[in-house]
Amino acid sequence: MDFRTIADIEIGDKATFTKTISEADVYLFAGITGDLNPSHVNAEYAKTTSFKERIVHGQLTVALLSAVIGTQLPGPGTIIVSQSVEFTAPVYFGDTITAEIKVIEKQADKNRLKLEANCLNQNGKTVASGEFIVSPYVKR
Amino acid sequence: MDFRTIADIEIGDKATFTKTISEADVYLFAGITGDLNPSHVNAEYAKTTSFKERIVHGQLTVALLSAVIGTQLPGPGTIIVSQSVEFTAPVYFGDTITAEIKVIEKQADKNRLKLEANCLNQNGKTVASGEFIVSPYVKR
Amino acid sequence: MDFRTIADIEIGDKATFTKTISEADVYLFAGITGDLNPSHVNAEYAKTTSFKERIVHGQLTVALLSAVIGTQLPGPGTIIVSQSVEFTAPVYFGDTITAEIKVIEKQADKNRLKLEANCLNQNGKTVASGEFIVSPYVKR
Amino acid sequence: MDFRTIADIEIGDKATFTKTISEADVYLFAGITGDLNPSHVNAEYAKTTSFKERIVHGQLTVALLSAVIGTQLPGPGTIIVSQSVEFTAPVYFGDTITAEIKVIEKQADKNRLKLEANCLNQNGKTVASGEFIVSPYVKR
Repeated sequence: MDFRTIADIEIGDKATFTKTISEADVYLFAGITGDLNPSHVNAEYAKTTSFKERIVHGQLTVALLSAVIGTQLPGPGTIIVSQSVEFTAPVYFGDTITAEIKVIEKQADKNRLKLEANCLNQNGKTVASGEFIVSPYVKR
Repeated sequence: MDFRTIADIEIGDKATFTKTISEADVYLFAGITGDLNPSHVNAEYAKTTSFKERIVHGQLTVALLSAVIGTQLPGPGTIIVSQSVEFTAPVYFGDTITAEIKVIEKQADKNRLKLEANCLNQNGKTVASGEFIVSPYVKR
Repeated sequence: MDFRTIADIEIGDKATFTKTISEADVYLFAGITGDLNPSHVNAEYAKTTSFKERIVHGQLTVALLSAVIGTQLPGPGTIIVSQSVEFTAPVYFGDTITAEIKVIEKQADKNRLKLEANCLNQNGKTVASGEFIVSPYVKR
Repeated sequence: MDFRTIADIEIGDKATFTKTISEADVYLFAGITGDLNPSHVNAEYAKTTSFKERIVHGQLTVALLSAVIGTQLPGPGTIIVSQSVEFTAPVYFGDTITAEIKVIEKQADKNRLKLEANCLNQNGKTVASGEFIVSPYVKR
């Protein structure tokens, strides 16, 4: 991984990370976070919902965006200042989610970037979208 | 767990969940999400940062809020519509984080609640705060 | 989570927790506990048994009862004193198990409760049943 | 692992398994089972208890006994029929627990064994003890 400072980053830069979300991912996520909402871990309950089956935690989807931010764009050493996300469609076990980050504003003096964030499933449907304000790595 | 509809919930209702965040939590979270930012998993790099040690993923902290929402208030079956969060202080390995949710707006006709969200560490310092828009469980 | 003392609990009180048991649950449970009995992790061996497929650790089922006890009834801070459990039917990977706890005796002076415990699968079949003696949370 | 039938097992046979219980073990166990009792995952709460620190799930200790049963004595293919356990001392993170199983009764015609079960910590203190009724492997 390369440590890039804000000087290395331009408006319009993009990066993505794609992962197929497994049942094990969701179950471990539930255990770590304590989010045992039956929507995620109770298949019988899930049949009675409008989604008809267990769905992935929205926060896991958001974390894929964070993964792009923390490993690619801006990359290692980035700190997230704030974020807003809207969930627009369910993510099912086995879905392949692509998290996309794009730089849309740059304030070099404050070491701040605004990032547009989108998560899409394997059919190109947007499942979550939002914005992140981040501080890229600073050389010390 | 009790399934509660919006009729069972009042403005001002509160709930919390507290967990001491272990190294294992952070490492599993990194593995599941792909967020291998060295801030989280590289102790040598972390020494060179302003935080001086590895810090916990902000998304893990946010997910504790989601745990309160999905298991307590509004509780099982709740769907998160959107959220915004600001990160105000670092969370270190071994910190004990209390996620607090409070109902601040209720739109029964749209089955929507606005929730105030705060995460505090063991010293009472706010590490993250924000708002969630959620749809509580609906009986079918 | 609310901390409830024995004064808050009555004979007849009930609580449940339901989870669909995933392969990942069983495999992690096997790894943590060292219980690598081929009944749980060897699908070829399992075909030769009367169960015809891999089954879930009985102790994982029991632990769902413990989850109800430690998070709901009596709830946080409860200590288990003793327990007895009978296993009455196999639990298969993917089964949805509901753990039910019911208070059947209360000795307030000794801070002891006797709990009836049952685990049922998605078809309503009892897979395990027994009793727990517990000490609820005490305010200090 | 050897598959042993009841004919291969004598009253007085013994076996043990020893493991140092890590924080990661306890946290994964909490996640799999949903047992997020603050006694196990909240270090600040734990300071206020008589134990002064987080303790290991009793069910994890019991599961070490199950590991001996399912891998050594009687061994692979064994099914647990019933069990009773008393918890006699707390288990702390980092404790090294030895699970001991000893055959105390044999009913060859019913393919049943009664096993005496004890868990000891690194100081030789008994932390849990009880009995298991099991059905050893049957050749088909």
